[in-house]
Amino acid sequence: MLTMKNKNYFRKAVADMAGYTPGEQPSGDIIKINTNENPYPPSPAVTAAINGFQTASLRRYPSARADGLRDLIAEMHGVKRENVIAGNGSDDLLTMITRAFVSPELPMACLDPTYTLYRDLAAMQEAKIITVELEPETFALPENLLEQAKGANLLMIPRPNAPTGNTFPLDTVEQICRGFDGMVLIDEAYADFAADNCMRLAATLQNVIVMRTLSKSYSLAGMRAGYAVAAAPVIAGLMKLKDSYNLDAVAQAAAAAALCDRDYFNGRINKIKETRSRLTGELEDMGFIVVPSSTNFVFTRPPKPFTAKAIFEFLRDRLIFVRFFDRERTRDYLRISVGTDDEMAKMLAAIREFMKK
Amino acid sequence: MLTMKNKNYFRKAVADMAGYTPGEQPSGDIIKINTNENPYPPSPAVTAAINGFQTASLRRYPSARADGLRDLIAEMHGVKRENVIAGNGSDDLLTMITRAFVSPELPMACLDPTYTLYRDLAAMQEAKIITVELEPETFALPENLLEQAKGANLLMIPRPNAPTGNTFPLDTVEQICRGFDGMVLIDEAYADFAADNCMRLAATLQNVIVMRTLSKSYSLAGMRAGYAVAAAPVIAGLMKLKDSYNLDAVAQAAAAAALCDRDYFNGRINKIKETRSRLTGELEDMGFIVVPSSTNFVFTRPPKPFTAKAIFEFLRDRLIFVRFFDRERTRDYLRISVGTDDEMAKMLAAIREFMKK
Repeated sequence: MLTMKNKNYFRKAVADMAGYTPGEQPSGDIIKINTNENPYPPSPAVTAAINGFQTASLRRYPSARADGLRDLIAEMHGVKRENVIAGNGSDDLLTMITRAFVSPELPMACLDPTYTLYRDLAAMQEAKIITVELEPETFALPENLLEQAKGANLLMIPRPNAPTGNTFPLDTVEQICRGFDGMVLIDEAYADFAADNCMRLAATLQNVIVMRTLSKSYSLAGMRAGYAVAAAPVIAGLMKLKDSYNLDAVAQAAAAAALCDRDYFNGRINKIKETRSRLTGELEDMGFIVVPSSTNFVFTRPPKPFTAKAIFEFLRDRLIFVRFFDRERTRDYLRISVGTDDEMAKMLAAIREFMKK
Repeated sequence: MLTMKNKNYFRKAVADMAGYTPGEQPSGDIIKINTNENPYPPSPAVTAAINGFQTASLRRYPSARADGLRDLIAEMHGVKRENVIAGNGSDDLLTMITRAFVSPELPMACLDPTYTLYRDLAAMQEAKIITVELEPETFALPENLLEQAKGANLLMIPRPNAPTGNTFPLDTVEQICRGFDGMVLIDEAYADFAADNCMRLAATLQNVIVMRTLSKSYSLAGMRAGYAVAAAPVIAGLMKLKDSYNLDAVAQAAAAAALCDRDYFNGRINKIKETRSRLTGELEDMGFIVVPSSTNFVFTRPPKPFTAKAIFEFLRDRLIFVRFFDRERTRDYLRISVGTDDEMAKMLAAIREFMKK
């Protein structure tokens, strides 16, 4: 009964794509510090919102634009509702933003190394990618970034950057935004773990979008909620590309609950920063180079003769999952999410065992 | 401090778009029968899944491909996991499908009248739209559909169709799929309210995608869950365009719970069909033309001299919200969702009041 028709009707760009590979999601009795998940559960307010959710209301569509949530976010950042768009995770927002500003005629500029998903999103749009190499060792922005990125219509600046973990000087980023003739997306997925952020730029410059996610700092990776802040005309344009009801009613409630519990949030952020600081010290004591981290992970290079790949595999065999990116600029490093103190101790003990062999 | 930079960096297609307008979502003490929501709450199993959800797990990313849910769906339809993709509502799937198969070089064919979102999605892709007019009065497929749709790479067939509510003969649709040189998307958003469906075609033809949503028949509009069934290479291609974690962990659990409770589902479907049958009879008794409905709504034309627009406005003034599409092919009709028996009685009483004036 199977028809013989076996033609590939996909757009060539899609047929040719490999597709983005998210980090491994193994489960069971393991130490999972490979995808920058928060080691702590979400706020009890989130539990109350979900476990007390009035499910009868689910027969109705959710708020199409998540206005209640947008108002909360706007208040938090001192902007207006019209400056905020909510997304089904920041993935959803990245899809809208690349569809809005990137095309075969409108190139994207992105850093290297950086979040590899950006390149896949550009490929879907059949867009040329302008790669701006970060400085060796420091992973700092090159001085001539504006010159290199010229001609791009969208410039992706994750601040702090992933997978390198470092941040970029705020005034440098502001100068770039002012000088760049195109949109700048400042992806602040990890900004809650940093000393400062760029939200002020989104509120004052017409060509800047600042994006946040609740996945990491609010322990809501499983819930999918993110948002972007920008000038009202930019948000209005992105709204056109949004799926009509992109954020489900439970996610809207959970996200609002998480954002409102500032005490819980601040407590967990401080705890993670403390663990990060101790982890950095211990790795450095063991001879590792650690890129100064403004995130909930560290990007670290083992001392010679040890290789990142060998340590990655050794840890994996012991059910400790860290991330290793086997590409030119990154293969000397491991990316290790900041977990609980206990997880860090076990991981460090395993690395010490490896180095003793 | 506001910069003067005020250039529009949006892709021209996006800047020029108006954007899709979902049906009004008023709230309060109203009768809301304008967006085909189910009048009944979701299954108690959904309530148990959400209100008993272990929120600590939300710190982790959800299953990226929703494999547990896909397995359930595959079993339900007698296909394999590799034949199923889950979406954040069918909106999410429609976005992937249009991005996969539609471009400036690859036109989309769709019916008129039909779900207007399809045209907006094609516009985002800067694709030519080939419009296939349905027959007057009956809204049947034209005999020369294949001829008209020739050259399109994607053909959208909602079956049953919206907003007209009628279905198309199964063998006709099969012939179209076999004869069409491109992908056919059979949007079965309302198929659970119909006497038959096209799932067999998705399982046997390489160029057919059948899409379902849990929004209507499972009372989960607020939760956002849908899925598509197709040949494995088609699903694999769509996966490349999927946001990495498009379906949150709570939605995956809720959708699985809803799908498993067949007794509840069948009971509510039967109830809605009974109400639909009675509603159709009463409208016909009042002189309305009712397009035979295979959905949870009726598309109905008032007898002269009454106009659909006047009735729509009269009902709205009484806080009864039905849908009126002010376009050439649809402005003689009202689209009324099948609500509870009580809601239908109140709506009919209001129409009678209007006609007596």
